[in-house]
Amino acid sequence: MKARVLFSGGKDSALAAVMLFNFFEVELVTCTFGILENWKIAKRVAEGMGFPFKVLNLDKSIIDCAVEQIIKDGTLRDGITKIHKSALEEVAGLSDSVLLADGCRRDDRTPILSNGEIRSIEDKYNVQYIQPLAGFGRKTIDFLVDRYFEIEEKEGRLIEGSEYEYELRELIGKKYGNDRISELFPRAHTHSRVLKMKG
Amino acid sequence: MKARVLFSGGKDSALAAVMLFNFFEVELVTCTFGILENWKIAKRVAEGMGFPFKVLNLDKSIIDCAVEQIIKDGTLRDGITKIHKSALEEVAGLSDSVLLADGCRRDDRTPILSNGEIRSIEDKYNVQYIQPLAGFGRKTIDFLVDRYFEIEEKEGRLIEGSEYEYELRELIGKKYGNDRISELFPRAHTHSRVLKMKG
Repeated sequence: MKARVLFSGGKDSALAAVMLFNFFEVELVTCTFGILENWKIAKRVAEGMGFPFKVLNLDKSIIDCAVEQIIKDGTLRDGITKIHKSALEEVAGLSDSVLLADGCRRDDRTPILSNGEIRSIEDKYNVQYIQPLAGFGRKTIDFLVDRYFEIEEKEGRLIEGSEYEYELRELIGKKYGNDRISELFPRAHTHSRVLKMKG
Repeated sequence: MKARVLFSGGKDSALAAVMLFNFFEVELVTCTFGILENWKIAKRVAEGMGFPFKVLNLDKSIIDCAVEQIIKDGTLRDGITKIHKSALEEVAGLSDSVLLADGCRRDDRTPILSNGEIRSIEDKYNVQYIQPLAGFGRKTIDFLVDRYFEIEEKEGRLIEGSEYEYELRELIGKKYGNDRISELFPRAHTHSRVLKMKG
């Protein structure tokens, strides 16, 4: 059975893919709104990991809507969750999607879908939506990431990647200016980039 | 790293073990209160799966306490969760435990520990406690179980196994009589038994 894994090139979604690899035919999917070309980073990581890769164009109204939510809230959380939900639904709606997955972890605060929302996507699109890392805490994930990947990670610096944040940042900067960016994207925020698989 | 998996011989804990097998040295652990010898069923399944097995004797006061809770509540749920939590703490407390796991699934109603309770066990015993199936729904689990195991499962009939329910049933029957048993253990309740691994 094919499993489509929403993929940013970061360690969580990469680990989710590795965890599913023994059980399913994994395909990595990165979504873009056509604002930046940062999906190419995920493509490069996917190729390095040896997984098939697909890029999916999402409707720009989704990110526009998320930006309005973020500006209203003064925080990224609900806007990013909204984008993630739309991305899941888009992948779920592909005609040959049976199983989709992402890198959401037990201790994640964003994006978080409730069990009700998860089941609702499953029912609406007749798919299975799984979160391979939902039962794993930070320590165990760090152990596995260290075992499988060479990682680039710098505290407080954005490392170019394919997370939703990059296009959001670009769009917010254009519409609301750089001050809003520094308010909304905390300096301590860390993204990781998988450089390659070990061994 | 060794992963101790709480094991009943049923499909969920067996699948949890298989999912961890590629990443950790799996050891299966079954708990007993010394009331029945049904832990031997789990031992047989574990041997058939080719995993190391350990039986752990829990203090009888734990099940006595759970029985009182169940009689008070008129339902198994909280009593079983209490036993499961005690079993987890017992395994976590073993001197060489680093990582423990169980077969709890996304859609389980019993036993359910909150994220707070999970983290509290991790902090108290300096262990990692993971739930490999916490992000998997019923359909995906059924697919994987069918792929890996030959299963004995009969709707509405108890198949002898090593779940907590069997010793609970025995104890409640002795203390409160058979009527209480039929009230508390619904006929539709299904347990599965792994017969062997496929292929």
